[in-house]
Formats: sequence, C-alpha cells, structure tokens
Amino acid sequence: MTHTPANDANWLMAALALAARAVGLTDPNPRVGCVLIAADGHTVLGEGHTQAAGEAHAEVMALRDAASRGVSVAGATAYVTLEPCAHHGRTGPCCDALIKAGIARVVQAVGDPNPAVNGQGAARLRAAGIQVDDGPVHLAIEARELNIGFFSRMERQRPWLRMKMAASLDGRSALDNGVSQWITSSQARTDGHAWRRRAGVVLSGAGTVLEDNPRLDVRLVETARQPLRAVIDSRLDTPLDARLFEVDSPVLLFAAHPATERIDALRVRGAEVICLPDAQGKVDLAAALAELGARQINEVHLEAGERLNASWLRTGLVDELLIYLAPMLIGAGRGMAALGPLQALEQAARFEFHDVCRIGPDVRVLARQTTNPPD
Amino acid sequence: MTHTPANDANWLMAALALAARAVGLTDPNPRVGCVLIAADGHTVLGEGHTQAAGEAHAEVMALRDAASRGVSVAGATAYVTLEPCAHHGRTGPCCDALIKAGIARVVQAVGDPNPAVNGQGAARLRAAGIQVDDGPVHLAIEARELNIGFFSRMERQRPWLRMKMAASLDGRSALDNGVSQWITSSQARTDGHAWRRRAGVVLSGAGTVLEDNPRLDVRLVETARQPLRAVIDSRLDTPLDARLFEVDSPVLLFAAHPATERIDALRVRGAEVICLPDAQGKVDLAAALAELGARQINEVHLEAGERLNASWLRTGLVDELLIYLAPMLIGAGRGMAALGPLQALEQAARFEFHDVCRIGPDVRVLARQTTNPPD
Repeated sequence: MTHTPANDANWLMAALALAARAVGLTDPNPRVGCVLIAADGHTVLGEGHTQAAGEAHAEVMALRDAASRGVSVAGATAYVTLEPCAHHGRTGPCCDALIKAGIARVVQAVGDPNPAVNGQGAARLRAAGIQVDDGPVHLAIEARELNIGFFSRMERQRPWLRMKMAASLDGRSALDNGVSQWITSSQARTDGHAWRRRAGVVLSGAGTVLEDNPRLDVRLVETARQPLRAVIDSRLDTPLDARLFEVDSPVLLFAAHPATERIDALRVRGAEVICLPDAQGKVDLAAALAELGARQINEVHLEAGERLNASWLRTGLVDELLIYLAPMLIGAGRGMAALGPLQALEQAARFEFHDVCRIGPDVRVLARQTTNPPD
Repeated sequence: MTHTPANDANWLMAALALAARAVGLTDPNPRVGCVLIAADGHTVLGEGHTQAAGEAHAEVMALRDAASRGVSVAGATAYVTLEPCAHHGRTGPCCDALIKAGIARVVQAVGDPNPAVNGQGAARLRAAGIQVDDGPVHLAIEARELNIGFFSRMERQRPWLRMKMAASLDGRSALDNGVSQWITSSQARTDGHAWRRRAGVVLSGAGTVLEDNPRLDVRLVETARQPLRAVIDSRLDTPLDARLFEVDSPVLLFAAHPATERIDALRVRGAEVICLPDAQGKVDLAAALAELGARQINEVHLEAGERLNASWLRTGLVDELLIYLAPMLIGAGRGMAALGPLQALEQAARFEFHDVCRIGPDVRVLARQTTNPPD
C-alpha cells in the first residue's frame, strides 16, 4: 500500500484517535495526535499525542516512540492532526524536530490558527524539502471540532461558550418545588462529565451554588486534571463552606460589588475574586468571558439556572447548547432559560441543530449559534 | 437467484414499499402490499396494494396485475406484508384467490391480528398445499408499525392514540401572548400533515378551535381521503362558522352537556354530536376513545392545547408523542401539557424514545408509553 488519498485518510484518523486521548490533559494547548508511517505506507514507526502544557507535543512524542522502538524514521511520513508548530513556546518547534529526524512528508489535518504558526509551520517544513499535504476536508472539520475552543480563542480571541442543560421533553429542568434529581439518566450525567473534562472551566452561578451546592468538578469519568471552577456571584453569596472548596482545583468568583472582608474570607478558602461590575451593578458577563480567555481557557462549560442562562443568552455570546432531554413530560416547573415574555418569535434565542443522538434512555442535542438570520 | 432468506427479505421490502403507498387510502383496513415473483426468484409477475375499504385487497390487485401482463402465476411466490385473509369481509378471502391462481409459496411479513384471520389464513393456504413462510423479524416489526393502529384495535380493542406537539427546544408551544406561527419549520408542518393523513381522525379541543380556528384537515400532502375530524367540546363552544365546517369530511363533537338547540344548529352545519359526560361533568375521554374505536378508527391524531393534552395524559391512554422541536429558546410561554405542579418526579408522564430524526431545521421525536416502570 502506498500513499493513496484513502491511505492518508486512514492514518489521519488514527492520529485523530490519538488526539482524542489528549482531552483533559493538554489545556491550554490543543489536542494533537501524530502517527509516523514508513515509506511502505503501512508500517507504524511511532505514535504520540500532546502532553500536559509545557511538556512534549504530539510530533516529539511520536519521534520518541520510534526511538524507543529502535526504528529509523528517515523517509517516513508524519500524519498530524494540526499543523506542526514553528515557534518556540514552552517547548522547541516541532518542525525542527521533524526536519532533524529526516521525515520526508507531512500530512496535516488542519492548519494551526495560532498567529504564531498559521502556515509558517508548513512553510518551514517545505523550505527544508519536506512535502506537506492537507488531508480530506471532513477530517479537517473533525480536527477543528476536537479543538473548537482553541480555534475560537485563536480566531475570535474568546473561549467557546457551551451551555449545558438537562430537562424533560417539555423543557422543565426541575419541578416547581425544585426537585431535579434525577430527570435525566446516569448515562446522561456521565456524558455530561465527559464534556466537563473537555472544558478549561466549569462555570455556574451563585443561585445554583446556594441551591444545589455542587462541586462542579469531573467525577464520573477519569481525567488527568480538574478544570478551573468559576461562579458568577455578583454579591459574593457563595458560602464559605460550599462544597466547591472541597475540590483540589482553583475557584474563581466573578463579583460585582467589592466587599473587602468577604473577599478576604473567601480567599482563605482558596477562591480568587474578580470584580467586574456592569452599568447595572451586575457582573459584566462579556468581561468575565474575556477574562477567562485571557487566562487561556479554550472551552467554557456553563451549568447554571434559568436566570443566569437567560442573562448569558441575552449577551449573544453562547456558542453552543448541550441539552439532555429525558422522555417525560412534567408540565409546571423550572425552565431552561428565563427569557421573556417575548412579544414576537423573532426575539427568541435562535440556534441550529448540530448533532442529535441517543444517550442511554435520553436524547442529547447539540445546537449552535445560527449563522444565518431567520427568514 | 433462488429463494434465499436474503432474497425473501428483499421482496418483502418491495411489498412493504407498496403497502406504504396505501396510507391514506385503505382505512379502516390495514395497509398491505403484495409482490408475485416467478419460480426463478427474480422475475416480477405482479404487484399491488390494498385499495379503499370494500375494494380489492393487495393479493387480488397483484393477481390482476399479473393477468393484465398476460403472465401465469402458477408456481410463483407471493410476498405479502400481512397474512392473507381467510374470511369473507366486504371482499372474498384472499387465500382462496391465491390458491385458485396456483401460487406455490407465500412469504408473509406478519400474522394478521384480526380474530377472524389470526393464523387461519396461513392454515388455509397450507391445507391447500401452499408453503407458507414468515419473513425476518425486523420486517415483521416494520409491517406492524405501518399498521400500528390496526394492530392496536385488533389486539387492544382501542385505537392507537398519538399526541402531536410542536415547540421550541425549551418546550414552549407558543409565546405568552399566544403567538405560535411559526415556531417550527414548513418542513415540520408538512411532515405533520403526513401523520394526519395516516390517521382515521384528527382530534382537537374546543380551546384550540376557538383560538386558532383550524380546519384539522390534510392539506400539505396529497391524500386519497380526508380523515374524520373530532373535537372534545364539553359545552359545545365550537362556533357555527368554524373553519372546521369548510372541509368535506365529517365532524364529530364530543360534548358533556346535551344542549338540544345548540346540537340542532351544529347538526345543520354537518356536525355529529355525541354526549359522553364523566362524573365531573367533562367529556369522558376514555369513552370518547372507545367510541372512535367502535367507528373503526385505527390511529387517532391528537393536536390540542396544553390543558386538553394534560387531561389525555392523565388518562394514561396516550400511546405515542410526536413532537417537533425547533432550535430556539423562548423562555416564558405556553407549555406542551399543563400537568402539575407535581410533587415528585415519579408523577411525571413517562415515555421512551422510539425514533429521533431531523426534519429540515427541526428535530422530530417519537416517544412511546413506557413498558417498564421507572427504576
């Protein structure tokens, strides 16, 4: 088997599978996979994916893997899910490592949106006599999806904001009396934690903290690191004994009123307080999102109540809805987002379905901000 | 190609495709398709599906088709989506026609649940020396699904009750001010009319008639006949000039209070009024469903407002939810079903997802009454 397009696609998919294993490990760096294939087109010489920030990138891991196998990669093809980096970050440029190793060809799934790379990686490889090819478009999309928050931060200078909700088929996230455990299934809750793991921060609101006392951590799936937790907490209502503080990862509180004594007490508990008031004396949500971006957060996982959800929707900054729907009707109860009452349908928060699938007995919906205005 | 199981399945699928064309034509008879295949296993000799009630069944149509082609069906195999009938209904038994034509083998997708058939068709064929085989299980399920209301009426002595709803992702079927045109897309509305066409009756409530003044007919897809329309109308509030009366198909009003003068006026408009009060002075919904079954209605298509929906859900007689969800969030507004407020999640109306797919920009959900209690 030689380097046919179908063969290239197969090895890029293998590299993507490696990249997926890097979820929960590499933030703020992108999840990247690399497979080194001999000139015969089918012998695997080395494999690797990006490690934790500051440690080796996928290409270097794959080269190390080949070295540990005692095989030469001279003349080999490197399949990478993201354009190799050309800049000196916390590690040396991957381009140089590939050139030095004698790689003959690089197939990349998608270009790196990082302004420090952005085509310069491929150019540097080509200048060294390496053939650089792009993979098929559908794998470029998949590689981008895997790093959607990284692309968002590089291209739009803000994190990807995903709003997670769980509700009955008629959109009730809790009964009138507040009971919500459990509308959706254990499978849906486990899936939800896999999405938390992807995120750089799990974000909620003071209302949810006071009512549900959540830890906002990743528990139901294994993870190499816990995401940051953050709370929109205008008046710093988060209790000092909140279960948030039981988890060994930072807590960020976005406040609107600087109450020095309270801030000191929360700091003792390990929280960092950032005061970002808007003109109405509430937390400036756009500023909070920008702050998270400045902290190199790629994906924001928002799990809040209907009032904070509505406030976020009104900013227009919600990129994606992640909704678990259970096959039951509840009637009266809490909603997903306390919008309205609207006067016309044009005022509704509009999205487009991106993916719909079954998760155990429930349905999972991914919907994204609509790119076209309603007709 | 001879009579392999795979070949049998292919011809049964062809017969099912014919049966699907009979939707909207055959009620109260089941939708059945028949394909006659020569002994070589691949030559089509005749095809047909059930005609309107009182006219020819699928087998007879296929035999006629073969005759019109001038070919002999002696020794052929008949693929039928439902066990051939053995009884004299409005037409002669199909078994006798198949025997007389010299058919050598019959492959049936599913047995006929009609107590007048129910294995007797196959027995009669076998007694005449014809080999009778069942097709694969997945096609038995498909054949049953196509006639789900007929099976329900034969096996449970009541129609299949399907509740249709259209809402935003957060379960709002209208804004607070009543505006609902249009939350879902034109594709979803067309699909909804295809479901109306399947039904023997389109059922609504007086509230919807007063507010939306619907015709409750099939307009957006072609149909051979209009279903019956029926309204749950306790106090006979349906206006004499309702658009219901503009359609050339019967209107049935289920009332709770016999108001003779009003009944006479409505009769002049073409309505039939049936008085079925329950102990609370409302319409006895179970009795209404039984009455529709007595009128040989197979599938009931319910399109009502949130109060009547809740009343139907409380009877436990809703077999299926047909829900179109639009990718938008509305917040405050009308719900799908005015249940509750519930005190515990165990009181929710529970279903199981049966099918979830995309219809244009919307998602269509089919959920069915749960066969297992919640854990």
